[in-house]
Amino acid sequence: MELYTYYRSTSSFRVRIALALKGLDYQALAVNLIAAQGGEHRQPAYLQLNPQGRVPALRTDQGELLIQSPAIIEYLEEAYPQVPLLSGNLAQRAHERAVAALIGCDIHPLHNVSVLNKLRQWGHDEPQVVEWISHWISQGLAAVEQLIGDAGYCFGSAPGVADVYLIPQLYAAERFNISLDAYPRIRRVAALAAQHPAFIKAHPANQPDTP
Amino acid sequence: MELYTYYRSTSSFRVRIALALKGLDYQALAVNLIAAQGGEHRQPAYLQLNPQGRVPALRTDQGELLIQSPAIIEYLEEAYPQVPLLSGNLAQRAHERAVAALIGCDIHPLHNVSVLNKLRQWGHDEPQVVEWISHWISQGLAAVEQLIGDAGYCFGSAPGVADVYLIPQLYAAERFNISLDAYPRIRRVAALAAQHPAFIKAHPANQPDTP
Repeated sequence: MELYTYYRSTSSFRVRIALALKGLDYQALAVNLIAAQGGEHRQPAYLQLNPQGRVPALRTDQGELLIQSPAIIEYLEEAYPQVPLLSGNLAQRAHERAVAALIGCDIHPLHNVSVLNKLRQWGHDEPQVVEWISHWISQGLAAVEQLIGDAGYCFGSAPGVADVYLIPQLYAAERFNISLDAYPRIRRVAALAAQHPAFIKAHPANQPDTP
Repeated sequence: MELYTYYRSTSSFRVRIALALKGLDYQALAVNLIAAQGGEHRQPAYLQLNPQGRVPALRTDQGELLIQSPAIIEYLEEAYPQVPLLSGNLAQRAHERAVAALIGCDIHPLHNVSVLNKLRQWGHDEPQVVEWISHWISQGLAAVEQLIGDAGYCFGSAPGVADVYLIPQLYAAERFNISLDAYPRIRRVAALAAQHPAFIKAHPANQPDTP
């Protein structure tokens, strides 16, 4: 498989964790999202692959190009069911996916760089932009804290799809200096993931395109 | 099943469509989101059910309370596989889920009422708020237009998960007077859905709590 990825992209990080947890090999194809360095995601070559111009995108072993991290992660779960990321119980799967969706829909999109740039275009200064980011991350993590379990990863002793979404979101929280003091369960999950080889391998600090 | 729903909520509308396409009966429990009318989603009774204070939430026949429309829709697909909303082909499922994720992550969250209220708190007037909404909806629908098929619903002759997300998004676009002129494929899907009993049954105009 080939993964179009950017080291610091939250949604690329998710897919890298899923691949690593499942022990799947892939070739990383770095897409530099920095506008001042050419913004490869906005170039015709990449837009032809992904008309939305975002990362990640996954080229499967059958040659299909898949986009959107939630769709890619469900694909990996269905195509490579060894090392499952979801419980076998239907309601429990829904609880796990709910945390993933809360992070993927109600937190991350609100501090995507395109949104922050729109706020800057509208004249908001950096303290206001940080206030905006902090508001959505804190509100979302407070809900996550109430939804996840009391021990282990988000839902039990093995990492799953909720952790695949949570850990990249915490990386973003850290970049913006958002305190996790109010979220002891989340801090517990973060501490476990920090020691787990798959999360370490997938981390933005350890990518081929990390500066 | 019981569905906590609000007639005009985009994500409640999605779940209602999925239920109707699968021919599943449920009891609708209306949650009035209007702050000036008490904001039932912010009251302790509802927050005890769903700490995030959002709709929809689904009470399953086994008594489990599920939240987050993407998780609820995947649950319905797994628990009631008759009338499938996803293809049987793994890559095609990913293409279908990608359109759902694009709408559910990259369009809808950006014009959620909580985001618009934050912009208003920051002093943006209604023309600016409408510009904000229009920007994200138009950008997202332009990508959807390139990802869906040339005939029938988004992906073929029967409605599926992409349509479950698209039609409520178009209802929102209509509320904000956003033109669909540039999206002939999307307009084709909208015309088909407008005649389909499940989409009609699920429509905000036809709910018990419609004013």
